[in-house]
Amino acid sequence: MVESRLSGPVRVVGVGLLGASIGLGLRARGIEVQLADASPTHLAIAVDYGAGRAAEPGDAPALIVVCVPPDVTADVIAAELDAYPDAIVTDVASVKLGILDDLAARGADLSRYLGSHPLAGRERGGPLSGRADLFVGRPWVVAAHDGISYQRASVIDDLILDLGATLVEMTAAEHDRAVALVSHAPQVVSSLMARRLTDAPHSAVNLSGQGLRDVTRIAASDPELWVQILGANAEPVLEILRAYRDDLDRFIDALADPAAPGARRRIAEEIVGGNTGVQRIPGKHGVDRRFTTLVVMVDDTPGQLARLLHEIGEVGVNLEDLRLEHSPGAQFGLAEIQIVPEAAESLTEELARRGWRIAG
Amino acid sequence: MVESRLSGPVRVVGVGLLGASIGLGLRARGIEVQLADASPTHLAIAVDYGAGRAAEPGDAPALIVVCVPPDVTADVIAAELDAYPDAIVTDVASVKLGILDDLAARGADLSRYLGSHPLAGRERGGPLSGRADLFVGRPWVVAAHDGISYQRASVIDDLILDLGATLVEMTAAEHDRAVALVSHAPQVVSSLMARRLTDAPHSAVNLSGQGLRDVTRIAASDPELWVQILGANAEPVLEILRAYRDDLDRFIDALADPAAPGARRRIAEEIVGGNTGVQRIPGKHGVDRRFTTLVVMVDDTPGQLARLLHEIGEVGVNLEDLRLEHSPGAQFGLAEIQIVPEAAESLTEELARRGWRIAG
Repeated sequence: MVESRLSGPVRVVGVGLLGASIGLGLRARGIEVQLADASPTHLAIAVDYGAGRAAEPGDAPALIVVCVPPDVTADVIAAELDAYPDAIVTDVASVKLGILDDLAARGADLSRYLGSHPLAGRERGGPLSGRADLFVGRPWVVAAHDGISYQRASVIDDLILDLGATLVEMTAAEHDRAVALVSHAPQVVSSLMARRLTDAPHSAVNLSGQGLRDVTRIAASDPELWVQILGANAEPVLEILRAYRDDLDRFIDALADPAAPGARRRIAEEIVGGNTGVQRIPGKHGVDRRFTTLVVMVDDTPGQLARLLHEIGEVGVNLEDLRLEHSPGAQFGLAEIQIVPEAAESLTEELARRGWRIAG
Repeated sequence: MVESRLSGPVRVVGVGLLGASIGLGLRARGIEVQLADASPTHLAIAVDYGAGRAAEPGDAPALIVVCVPPDVTADVIAAELDAYPDAIVTDVASVKLGILDDLAARGADLSRYLGSHPLAGRERGGPLSGRADLFVGRPWVVAAHDGISYQRASVIDDLILDLGATLVEMTAAEHDRAVALVSHAPQVVSSLMARRLTDAPHSAVNLSGQGLRDVTRIAASDPELWVQILGANAEPVLEILRAYRDDLDRFIDALADPAAPGARRRIAEEIVGGNTGVQRIPGKHGVDRRFTTLVVMVDDTPGQLARLLHEIGEVGVNLEDLRLEHSPGAQFGLAEIQIVPEAAESLTEELARRGWRIAG
């Protein structure tokens, strides 16, 4: 067992995916975890699952982590601050400024509250989805404010580091603007695109390729959760969506008369702007490094992709990314492999020598 | 060598990715291929690469496939119809109605022309990217019109089937509306979203997750090509973008006053509409079948992913899809594996028994 930075017991309020995962992660380091949830069923599952024990009267947690839905987070934080006057409280809601303002307006004791947000990717719910390593390697934002002392806040840093996440500090407002850009606005853009498919002819959706699949994948997200998130972060999301709409209006105007002077240039500028923007997204290792892509044909039978990756491993090349591309009706897939450019030539030769069909 | 349905020689005009791939695919079946290109360099590469021989005066092709950029396709088709009065002509441009109308307006011999469009996924260029199996398992639309007889059109069906593609018949107008929906509008939506990242703070883009990566992946596409495609299919794309903008406007209005009566419901309806739309996209095997996802932790060292897939193969389970999920700074990846639901329980047990960490 890896030694923990935390000392005292941790109370987790709300044992959905995030709460249960925090409990599991802390239990794996031997920390005492006290669980509470409005649903006795969820609580029982989380306890059975090993995320901690049910909270009891007289518990004296050093740290409280509130993991309830966004629209009740401020209420629960305020109640926890009142009920446990010696505890430090944090939360994991995906929008931070509204909660902080709400607590300040109530006169809550902000000297014991510091909000946070683990970017744990997965938004699917329930304690059964929880896992001890959900946060490992993920950014976990601490939404700094002036009301809490450095020393008191350190227990939250310890929590984050104990769970293997990467601590990122920004203000609540900075955080909310950042997630509006990288998470909330893309959700809207994706959902609205997918919505266009609802009444499309079957023959049209049958021509769907990987591009559409990628653009619309997150459109499968939970509506109830997203109504809360978007409602809680309305201003920053609106700012981006309005700028997006202005671009879209310009684009539509240009496309409505593509032969007009400057119209094609305006269309090109939007596509080029997209090129520039997408290059800013950090890759696997957190840098803008560009990789080389190899496309290899893989038969659609068990073990074929494994054999390919095994042989890539034998050559000593590390995969930076891998994506399978399919086609309805095809009996094979295309494996798009991203590798460092230096390895491309030798790997291509080596795979071809072993009989793999390199497709690009 | 698999027997070909085609008999006479095929002339391919334009040896970029598509033209070179058609040449390679037909050569693999022993068909004589005559190549032409405005660029002597491209032509020489395609010949060296085995896509066919350079066209010569006196060639008498039975079928001509025009594979030039969209904005010159109609011109080249008209010239080919004139130059080879006994040949059937097709093209592979991604927009069909404008070309057909253009040819009709010129009085071209439509009894020998039938446009087509292989949905071959990859839009990156040059004969060096070509491959014989580019079209295998992909839909290839034939844009039917009344001016050509069934018998004459059959040589184009033969071409498509020879190259291993799946023949899909629709009118030119149906085709253009379909690709506007599943390809052209998503390109715009993705590019405009990515464009929002261009002047974002570094701290914000560092919080990017897989959702944003997916939504913006195709924003890396070639601007020059897309200006041509979008310009050539302006009306159907506009129809979708305008409907999309109407949804976006409604969404922005609702979000501007999320406490107003009905506002949250309207937000929810857009997200639910996205849920419904995304479910219509066919999966790998062309059906709406739902798979079960397993998430497995994989160390970021050569061979680990291979070992995982090898062991999945040993268990006899076929991967329906695989996606790697990363996090900046993390020393491992999460492999999201899609399998048929029936296999989920036994595979989970078997992998856990072999020491894999199942994360969801």
